[in-house]
Amino acid sequence: MKQGLKIAVIGGGSSYTPEIVEGFIKRYEQLPVRELWLVDIEEGRHKLEIVGELAKRMVAKSGLPIDVHLTLDRRRAIEGADFVTTQLRVGLLEARKWDEHIPNLHGVIGQETTGPGGMMKALRTIPVLLGICRDIEELSPNAWLLNFTNPAGMVTEAIHRYSKVKSIGLCNAPIGMYKWLSGKYDTPIDRIYAEFVGINHLHWVTRIEVAGEDKLPELLDRREEFTGKNVPATEWDPDFLRTLGGLPSYYLKYYYMTPEMLAEQLESLRANGTRAEVVKRVEDELFELYKDPNLQEKPKQLEKRGGAYYSEAAVNLMDSLYNDRRDIQTLNVTNGKILDFLPEDACIEVNCVVTGQGPIPLPVTKVPEQVKGLIHAVKTYERLAIEAAVTGDRGIALQALAHHPLVPSVSVAKTLLNEMLEKNKPYLPAFFS
Amino acid sequence: MKQGLKIAVIGGGSSYTPEIVEGFIKRYEQLPVRELWLVDIEEGRHKLEIVGELAKRMVAKSGLPIDVHLTLDRRRAIEGADFVTTQLRVGLLEARKWDEHIPNLHGVIGQETTGPGGMMKALRTIPVLLGICRDIEELSPNAWLLNFTNPAGMVTEAIHRYSKVKSIGLCNAPIGMYKWLSGKYDTPIDRIYAEFVGINHLHWVTRIEVAGEDKLPELLDRREEFTGKNVPATEWDPDFLRTLGGLPSYYLKYYYMTPEMLAEQLESLRANGTRAEVVKRVEDELFELYKDPNLQEKPKQLEKRGGAYYSEAAVNLMDSLYNDRRDIQTLNVTNGKILDFLPEDACIEVNCVVTGQGPIPLPVTKVPEQVKGLIHAVKTYERLAIEAAVTGDRGIALQALAHHPLVPSVSVAKTLLNEMLEKNKPYLPAFFS
Amino acid sequence: MKQGLKIAVIGGGSSYTPEIVEGFIKRYEQLPVRELWLVDIEEGRHKLEIVGELAKRMVAKSGLPIDVHLTLDRRRAIEGADFVTTQLRVGLLEARKWDEHIPNLHGVIGQETTGPGGMMKALRTIPVLLGICRDIEELSPNAWLLNFTNPAGMVTEAIHRYSKVKSIGLCNAPIGMYKWLSGKYDTPIDRIYAEFVGINHLHWVTRIEVAGEDKLPELLDRREEFTGKNVPATEWDPDFLRTLGGLPSYYLKYYYMTPEMLAEQLESLRANGTRAEVVKRVEDELFELYKDPNLQEKPKQLEKRGGAYYSEAAVNLMDSLYNDRRDIQTLNVTNGKILDFLPEDACIEVNCVVTGQGPIPLPVTKVPEQVKGLIHAVKTYERLAIEAAVTGDRGIALQALAHHPLVPSVSVAKTLLNEMLEKNKPYLPAFFS
Amino acid sequence: MKQGLKIAVIGGGSSYTPEIVEGFIKRYEQLPVRELWLVDIEEGRHKLEIVGELAKRMVAKSGLPIDVHLTLDRRRAIEGADFVTTQLRVGLLEARKWDEHIPNLHGVIGQETTGPGGMMKALRTIPVLLGICRDIEELSPNAWLLNFTNPAGMVTEAIHRYSKVKSIGLCNAPIGMYKWLSGKYDTPIDRIYAEFVGINHLHWVTRIEVAGEDKLPELLDRREEFTGKNVPATEWDPDFLRTLGGLPSYYLKYYYMTPEMLAEQLESLRANGTRAEVVKRVEDELFELYKDPNLQEKPKQLEKRGGAYYSEAAVNLMDSLYNDRRDIQTLNVTNGKILDFLPEDACIEVNCVVTGQGPIPLPVTKVPEQVKGLIHAVKTYERLAIEAAVTGDRGIALQALAHHPLVPSVSVAKTLLNEMLEKNKPYLPAFFS
Repeated sequence: MKQGLKIAVIGGGSSYTPEIVEGFIKRYEQLPVRELWLVDIEEGRHKLEIVGELAKRMVAKSGLPIDVHLTLDRRRAIEGADFVTTQLRVGLLEARKWDEHIPNLHGVIGQETTGPGGMMKALRTIPVLLGICRDIEELSPNAWLLNFTNPAGMVTEAIHRYSKVKSIGLCNAPIGMYKWLSGKYDTPIDRIYAEFVGINHLHWVTRIEVAGEDKLPELLDRREEFTGKNVPATEWDPDFLRTLGGLPSYYLKYYYMTPEMLAEQLESLRANGTRAEVVKRVEDELFELYKDPNLQEKPKQLEKRGGAYYSEAAVNLMDSLYNDRRDIQTLNVTNGKILDFLPEDACIEVNCVVTGQGPIPLPVTKVPEQVKGLIHAVKTYERLAIEAAVTGDRGIALQALAHHPLVPSVSVAKTLLNEMLEKNKPYLPAFFS
Repeated sequence: MKQGLKIAVIGGGSSYTPEIVEGFIKRYEQLPVRELWLVDIEEGRHKLEIVGELAKRMVAKSGLPIDVHLTLDRRRAIEGADFVTTQLRVGLLEARKWDEHIPNLHGVIGQETTGPGGMMKALRTIPVLLGICRDIEELSPNAWLLNFTNPAGMVTEAIHRYSKVKSIGLCNAPIGMYKWLSGKYDTPIDRIYAEFVGINHLHWVTRIEVAGEDKLPELLDRREEFTGKNVPATEWDPDFLRTLGGLPSYYLKYYYMTPEMLAEQLESLRANGTRAEVVKRVEDELFELYKDPNLQEKPKQLEKRGGAYYSEAAVNLMDSLYNDRRDIQTLNVTNGKILDFLPEDACIEVNCVVTGQGPIPLPVTKVPEQVKGLIHAVKTYERLAIEAAVTGDRGIALQALAHHPLVPSVSVAKTLLNEMLEKNKPYLPAFFS
Repeated sequence: MKQGLKIAVIGGGSSYTPEIVEGFIKRYEQLPVRELWLVDIEEGRHKLEIVGELAKRMVAKSGLPIDVHLTLDRRRAIEGADFVTTQLRVGLLEARKWDEHIPNLHGVIGQETTGPGGMMKALRTIPVLLGICRDIEELSPNAWLLNFTNPAGMVTEAIHRYSKVKSIGLCNAPIGMYKWLSGKYDTPIDRIYAEFVGINHLHWVTRIEVAGEDKLPELLDRREEFTGKNVPATEWDPDFLRTLGGLPSYYLKYYYMTPEMLAEQLESLRANGTRAEVVKRVEDELFELYKDPNLQEKPKQLEKRGGAYYSEAAVNLMDSLYNDRRDIQTLNVTNGKILDFLPEDACIEVNCVVTGQGPIPLPVTKVPEQVKGLIHAVKTYERLAIEAAVTGDRGIALQALAHHPLVPSVSVAKTLLNEMLEKNKPYLPAFFS
Repeated sequence: MKQGLKIAVIGGGSSYTPEIVEGFIKRYEQLPVRELWLVDIEEGRHKLEIVGELAKRMVAKSGLPIDVHLTLDRRRAIEGADFVTTQLRVGLLEARKWDEHIPNLHGVIGQETTGPGGMMKALRTIPVLLGICRDIEELSPNAWLLNFTNPAGMVTEAIHRYSKVKSIGLCNAPIGMYKWLSGKYDTPIDRIYAEFVGINHLHWVTRIEVAGEDKLPELLDRREEFTGKNVPATEWDPDFLRTLGGLPSYYLKYYYMTPEMLAEQLESLRANGTRAEVVKRVEDELFELYKDPNLQEKPKQLEKRGGAYYSEAAVNLMDSLYNDRRDIQTLNVTNGKILDFLPEDACIEVNCVVTGQGPIPLPVTKVPEQVKGLIHAVKTYERLAIEAAVTGDRGIALQALAHHPLVPSVSVAKTLLNEMLEKNKPYLPAFFS
C-alpha cells in the first residue's frame, strides 16, 4: 500500500461535504487520506468555495496531514484516485422541484427517487455518471466508485452494465435501521443481524436478530417503525404488517398507502411548496452557517437535512475495502443468483461481506412470497428506464413509465413523460438530438 | 382402447352445454363418446333438465349411439370417466354480481376474473374443484380434468398443487385469436403460429407468423385488435403498442387503461346494472329457447353469450389427448422452466404440443422485458389467493389483495376484503369456521 | 415462396451422396428442389465426378426438373441457397485412421467421434465449418445449414456460438431407433414417442411409448437393443440396465464397458486394421460400383456403409422447415433451459417441434439422476475442445483431453495430445502458426 | 445464554480426542464448556477409558471448571447438548482395511474417502449418523451437529436431506491450506482470502489473495503444493496446472493421476499393507502413550496421525456459532444456488460467513469451466450412494459405483460391489434384511 489515499468527491460543493470530511478525520488511523479533491461544475463554484473553505478549516483544526483541493477539473481529481464518490445533483434542486410537482399535478406520487420523479432524475443523472466512469476507466481504473447519487440502485446498475468501473451503490437507510435497532435494544451494532431483501428504496427486512434473538415478530406486532426524515410518518395497518413477513422500508408507503401519501403530498404542497423547495431553504441556511470563518466543524443543523449517516456509511465502506475487514454491510451490488427471479446483472440491495477485493453478496434466507411481484415490477421499470437513459429512446421511456406500479395508465404515463421530458430538455441531450 | 368414451360434464346445466354437445356430435368419428353425463347440483336441477332434454334431442337427431345421462350424483358421473370437464359457477350469477359491484363501489375495477372480483370467485371455486378432484382421484384416477371454470389459471394451479389429478386449464381467448387471424389473413389455422407469453387473461402474443411471414409489426402498427364480447373495446395508444413487443390480451386493458375502464364500468353499471345482470337476462332468454321441444340444435343466440369457441377448444383438446395428435394448442399448464422468473409449479398459459401423455409446453422464444414485472406481480397475487382459498386464512387473503396491481392501497384492500368475504359467507366455509 | 429450392451439399463427393439424391427424388412433391449443387475440394474432384455423374443419371431417370451442378467453387454453390448440408471429412479417412490408432497405442478408446479421436476430428473440422459459415453469412444469410459432419454436436455448438448462421445438427441414431421400434412393434412411427435425454452420441431414451403404452420397462428388462453398424454389439449387464432409467445409446458402451470395448478394438485392429481402413475398403468398392454408367439408382451395398437413414433424416427435416410441418424430430440444437445443469448455449440432442421458423426443443420430462454427471463431464470436455479448435490454444486442448472421462490421466492426455497434434499438423493452422 | 456449554463427542474414544480437549482448554474464555461428554460403544469401552482418563488429567491440569463424563449411553450425552461432534468409525480400522484392499485387488484406487472405499464407508456410516440425528431431534433439537466423520460431504448431505438437525460438515484440508499459505507468506490468516470451489475432497482453490495480492498465478506456476499426510506427494504436470484455473486439492490426484496413484498404492500395499494397517500401528502406539498416568497434555506424536487441525477447525466453528463472530470459514453446507449446476440440496464445500444463526455460504466468483463436469460426476455418484445407504437398494448402489469416475466399467463396479457388500454385511442391515 502507498503512503496515503487519494479521494475524489464529485459534487464536492454539496451541503453534505462537511459530514464526509468529519468522517475522514475521525477514521484517519484506519483510512489515511492524504489528498481530498472536492470537484464541482461551474454553476456550483460558489458553493464549492464556501464548503471547501470550511473543509480546510476542519482539517486544519484536526492537525492531520490531509490536503484539501478544490477544483472544477474533474479529470485532475479523478487521476490516480483510490476512491471516487459522487453526491451530485444534475439540474440542482430546481429540476427536483419539477420531478415532484408535475406528477402531483396529474394525481400521481411526486417523489425524488420513487415513481415518475425518480425516473426523470435517472434520465438526467445516468449519462453524467457514465461520463465520470469514462474518466475513471482512463485515469484511475483501479479506483472504487462509491455512488451515493440517487436513484442509487438504478445509477449503480447503469454503471455495472455500461462501464468497467468497480462501483458500489450506497444508501443511508440500512445503516439508519441498524442505528435505530441498536438504540432501541441498547445493543451494539455488531450484535445485530438484519437481512435486507429487495432493491434500493424498495426493501423488506425479513430477519432481525438482536444478540441472537429473533425480534422480527415483536417489531411487526408493535408496528414500531424506523423512518426517514424525508418520508411522512403514517401508521401501518396492523393486520397487514403482521402477515407481511418483513419490516417494510418506509419508501414502501408510496406503494402500500398510495392515496394517503398522495393526499399528504398535495396538502404539503399547498402549505410549503414541494419538498425540493423546503430542502432549498434548509440548504440556504446551511451555507450561511458554512460561511462563518470561525466554524471549524460540521454544524449540528446539518442533521435536519435528511441524509443522516451517509458519510458514516461511506467511510465505513472505504475502511472495509481498504483494510479487507470482511464485515457485513448492506449495499447496492449486482444480483448474481441472490434473487433468482431477477436478471443476474440487476442491481439489488443486499447484505454483503466486504473484502479487500470488493463486496460479496450474501444469499438471502427468507424471501416472503408476497413481495416478489412488486420487486420484479419495479425492477422491470428500472431496467427500461436505464435503457432509456442510455439510448434517449422515447418509446422505451414510455414503456418504463407505463409499467411503473405507481402510474395508473398508459395515457397518464404519456402525458407525464411529455411534460417532464420537455421541462428537462437542457439535461437530456440524448432525447433531443 | 375401449369401445367408447365416458365424459362427465360438471355444471352440465349451464347454458353452454349445447355447444359442447354439438362439438361431440361433429367430432364423433375421431372422438367416439358413448356416455355423456351432465351433472349439476340441486339448485341447478331445473336448468339441467331443460338443457339436458335439448342435449338428448340433439343427439337423437344426429343418430349417433351416445347415451346422455342427467344426474345430481357427481360421483356416479365421475366413476370411470375418461374426461371430466367443469363449467360450474359457485354462487351462480348472484355471487358474480357482487364480485363486480363491490369493487366498483370503492373505485376499483369490478370484473369476473380480474382484480378483487376474480379473487372472490377463486375463493369460492377452488375448494369445490378440489372436492371434485378428490372424487376423481378415487373413482377415475386416469381421467383428464379439463377445467373451463374461471379464474381458469388459478383454479388449474390449485389443482396441480393440491391434487394428483391430471388437469389442463382452458380458455377461449387463444383459439379466438387464431380464428380472428385466420379470417383476417384468409389463411388456415394450421399455417398460423402465435406465441403466447404470460398467464391466463394476462398474456401477450409476441410472435405472429402467417404462412411463414412475420405479421406482428403490422398488427401492432395498425392497432387492429382481437377482442372479446365481454370486454369493452377501447383504442390502444399507438406509441405504446408499437414499443410493447407483443399484442396484448384484451384483458390487459384493465391494467393499462385502468381509469378509462373503470369509468366505462361505472357508466355501464348506471345504465344496465352489472355485467352479471346483463348475462342473467341473456341466459334467461336462452333457457326459454331451450325449452322448445322442437329445438334440436344449438340456437344461434348462444353466440351472443360470450364464450365463443369454448366447446371447440375442449373437443379439440380431447381429440389430441385421445389420439396423440401432437398438434400445438395454447393451454394452461405447469410452468416448469418456461418462464424462468416464476416458480416451477406456477400455472401459465403457453403453447403446448398435445401428446397422448398430455401437453408438453413449448419454450417461449421472445419475452419482452417490459412485461415480466406485471406477470410476476399478478402471479404473486394469484399464488397468495390460492393459498388463502385452501387455508381460509384472512391474513393471506389480505396479502393477496393488497399486492394486486389493481388495488390502490392496503386500506382499500382491507375494506374490499371484509365486505366481499361477508357477502360470500355461504360459499366460504373455510373462512367462517 | 419461390418456384423451387436451391440446395448446396458441401462434401458432395461423399459416398453418401446417392442417398440424399434419392431422398430429394422421393420427396419432390413436398420439397421441390430445382438446383442441387454438389461441392468438393480439389483433392475430392475425382470422387465428385464419379458420384456426381451417378446423381445426374438418377435425376434423369426420375424425370424431375432438378438441375445437378458439380463444382469446386463453394461460394457459388452457397450463394442464394435455401439449404446447405455438410458431409465433409477434413483430412479424409487417412486422418481418421490416426484418430483411431494413436489412442489405441496408449491403451485408450480410439473412436471417430468419442474420446481423443473425436476431439482431433473436432479440431480439424470446426475451423472449416466456421469458414463455410462465413460464406453463408455473406451469400445466403437466410439459409438453413444442416450439419451432418461429426462430431455433430460439437460442430453444431461451435456454429451456434461463433457464427450467426441458422444451423441444426443431425444424427442418424434417433431416426434409427424409431425405425427399430416401429419394426419391432409393428407400429407406424407417428404412433411412437421416444424421449431423448443427453447430447450427441451420449443420450439415454427415458420414455418409450408405443401406441400410448409405456414400453421402456420391458425393453430394459429384455435387453433388446438397438445398435449401429459401427459399434460392436456387447451385452448390457441386466441389473445395471434395469436400474438405469433409460435405454442407453450404443455409443455409451465406450463409457460403461470401456475395458471390453478397448479389448475388442485392439483385437479388431490386429485382424482388420482400424475402422477407418475397413471403411476405406467399403468406399473403394462403392465408387467402383458408382462408375458403372448403367447404374441409375442408389446401390444396395451403400447400406453396409453405416450411415443408414442419414438422408431420410435430412430430407425429413428440410420438409418440416420448408412446410412448417410442426412434427417432432430429435435434433442437435441449443439447450436453452432444457437441461438446467448445462450452459444455455450448449448444444444438446433433444426432441423438437420443427416449425417453419426452426425447431423448438421440447422440455424433457424424465432425467435420471444417474446420468447427469456423465453428460456434464462430456459436455465440459466438448466446450473446452471447441474453444481449443477456435483459438488453437494447446493449454485449453490439454484441459479438454485431461477432463475427458475416457482419458485415464493428465500424463496420458499430454502424450496423446502431442502425438495427435503433430500428426494433424497440416489441418491445424491455428495450432501451428 | 446459560452458564456454560454442554458438548457431546460421539466416538469419544478416538485417538483424536486429546486434540479437541486441548482446543476447549485453550479457547475456554470465548467458549465456556461446562460439561464434556465422551461417548463410545461397547467395543470402544477400553479406548474410551484410556483417552477419557487422559482428558480428565488434561482438564485437571488446566484448573478449569469443565466436567468430563465418559459414557456408553449416547442419549444421556446428547440430551440438552449445545454441540454434538462425531468422530466415529463404523467397523473400525478393520473395515477400512477392506475399503482400501478390495478395490486395489481389482486394479482400482482403494482409498478411505474417494472411490469405492469411500462409498462403502458412506454405506456403513450414514445410517448410524441418521440414528444419532433421531436422538438429537428428540433430545436437543437446537444443538449444532458438527460432523467430522468421513466421507464428510456425503454424510452431511445425508443429514441435511434426511433429518431436521442443524449440521455442518468439517474437513481439515481448508484450514491446512490457510496455515500453509500463512506460513509460506508469513502473513496472518485473516489477511488471506482463498476461494474454494467444489465438494469435500474434490475442490479447487480458484482465488488466493495474500494481503490483497493475487498469488494464484505464482502458486500454479511454481507448483508449490499443499498436501496432506495421507496422500502421497506426486508432482503436477506444469502445463496442466498453469491452465487449470485453480489449485487442486491433493485428493484430486486420484482423478488426475490415476495410474500413478494406483501404482503407488500397490507398491505401498506390498511394502506396508494398507493405509488402515499403517494407521492401526500408529494408533496402538498412541494409546500406549495415553495410558501413562503422568501424561497431562496432548502428546506430540498425535500430529503424525494425519488429521492435523481438525480440533482447531471444530473449536473455531463452535466459537463463531456461539459468539456470532461472522468470520469466514470453509465448510460443508447445503448448496442453495452457489454452484448452479448442482441440486440446491447438494452439500458443497465453500466459504461461509459464520453467524450465530449458522453459516451463510458465499457466492463463488470464479468457477473454471473445466472442473464443472468432474464435480457434477462425483456429486452424481454421491447422491446415488446416499440414496443407497438410506434405502439399502443394491440397484442404486450399483448405479452409484458404475457412475463413479474412478470405476472403469459396469462389470468392475458389479464385482466390487458384491465383494464389498459381502465383507461389510454386519454393518449393512438395510442391505441384508
